[in-house]
Amino acid sequence: MSDVRFTKVRLYVEQPLGEGQSVHLAREQAHYLFSVMRLVPDDTLLLFDGLSGEWLARVAEAGKRSGTLICVSRTRPLRPPPDLWLFFAPIKKARTDFIVEKAAELGAARICPVQTDFTNAERIRRDRLQAHAVEAAEQCGGTYVPEVDDLRRLDDVLVRWPEGRQLMFCDETLAGAGQGLGEAPEGAPWAILIGPEGGFSPTERARLRGLPFAHPVSLGPRVLRADTAAVAALTLWQLALGDWT
Amino acid sequence: MSDVRFTKVRLYVEQPLGEGQSVHLAREQAHYLFSVMRLVPDDTLLLFDGLSGEWLARVAEAGKRSGTLICVSRTRPLRPPPDLWLFFAPIKKARTDFIVEKAAELGAARICPVQTDFTNAERIRRDRLQAHAVEAAEQCGGTYVPEVDDLRRLDDVLVRWPEGRQLMFCDETLAGAGQGLGEAPEGAPWAILIGPEGGFSPTERARLRGLPFAHPVSLGPRVLRADTAAVAALTLWQLALGDWT
Repeated sequence: MSDVRFTKVRLYVEQPLGEGQSVHLAREQAHYLFSVMRLVPDDTLLLFDGLSGEWLARVAEAGKRSGTLICVSRTRPLRPPPDLWLFFAPIKKARTDFIVEKAAELGAARICPVQTDFTNAERIRRDRLQAHAVEAAEQCGGTYVPEVDDLRRLDDVLVRWPEGRQLMFCDETLAGAGQGLGEAPEGAPWAILIGPEGGFSPTERARLRGLPFAHPVSLGPRVLRADTAAVAALTLWQLALGDWT
Repeated sequence: MSDVRFTKVRLYVEQPLGEGQSVHLAREQAHYLFSVMRLVPDDTLLLFDGLSGEWLARVAEAGKRSGTLICVSRTRPLRPPPDLWLFFAPIKKARTDFIVEKAAELGAARICPVQTDFTNAERIRRDRLQAHAVEAAEQCGGTYVPEVDDLRRLDDVLVRWPEGRQLMFCDETLAGAGQGLGEAPEGAPWAILIGPEGGFSPTERARLRGLPFAHPVSLGPRVLRADTAAVAALTLWQLALGDWT
């Protein structure tokens, strides 16, 4: 038996994994593993599928445009985040990418771009944002990848709001931080809503305030950029209601 | 009297401001105001000096390489952040810039880059980082700009630690979040310390744990990148001990 070289490479794959399962690599994955990371047959790496945890895998075949891995044994169980969705208004490209990366790191279960009255973005590159969520999970040792939704109108989101899900939204006109969260039913699923630069329109704010499932919070006395607000809100929620304690 | 055009431009200037005070612009500031933002004489803008709040000012002279503003009246008092310093280990350029920007937004009073055992950076561009802090204050309506220090060794920082200042550091091996903060003397000045990617070395961790002024906190069960940890830690501190409530 040849020497096994254990590499620190972690890769997300879209197919369900299991012991002895073979994984046929797509062209870009083969390029990444064999040309960029220089893995060779019998090298090991870690795989995760977002469903069944993390697996030790071995390179069986390494080609320029294809390759095969064999799943050896499970190294960690799936650790899903709390049932928290992040709704946010897309802003400039780099800051939108950043919000998706941080949401994946901080444990959002689903990432939902929304178009608000003051949102400039007419469309998003869903596949690019999804790739950022995958990369964040690969880099940070995650076993779960939040799905990135297509862009929807905030009006439409609120009309079709799933029953029972609570909504935390950031209201710059409030004084104290997070005092309304405790009133929500215990163990309920949640969502966070972050407005764009410029905040919500007066119509949106009035509508949000009238929703029985919506809970306003303050993110302090300073004006925050939308990407900062997203990270701060995720932190506040995880501390108050999530899995940080 | 000509029509006064009120612009939304906000500019940080290094000289102390006061009513009737004239401000002579440096070359880059004149370029920004008159070539980029197209201000003309009698246009108004907002100035802040980090010391005396925010001022309405009027363009008196506009040249290509110079110009003069006149301070008209104070629009807001200085709103300084709590006495919180952020120590962090510089990482990749974009993420280091990001940490400085977010620290300024989230209300750190001073930003202190430190070299730890696992820090790759040998030097920083202090002036560039300071410019990011200024820009964050200009963009987010701040009246205060945290000073960015030169890079120092963590060892040296801890040896010369200012008496009475408490230190919150992020320890990935802890289970619960922020439970140790309540033990510190009330009203004490504070600092946060964020390690680099890869965390603190075992030596550093042992040393930090032995310091009477150091309080470990957890930032949840997921691995966070250093820039995410900085924003999450600033949020946690502001919620628990700062000016968010």
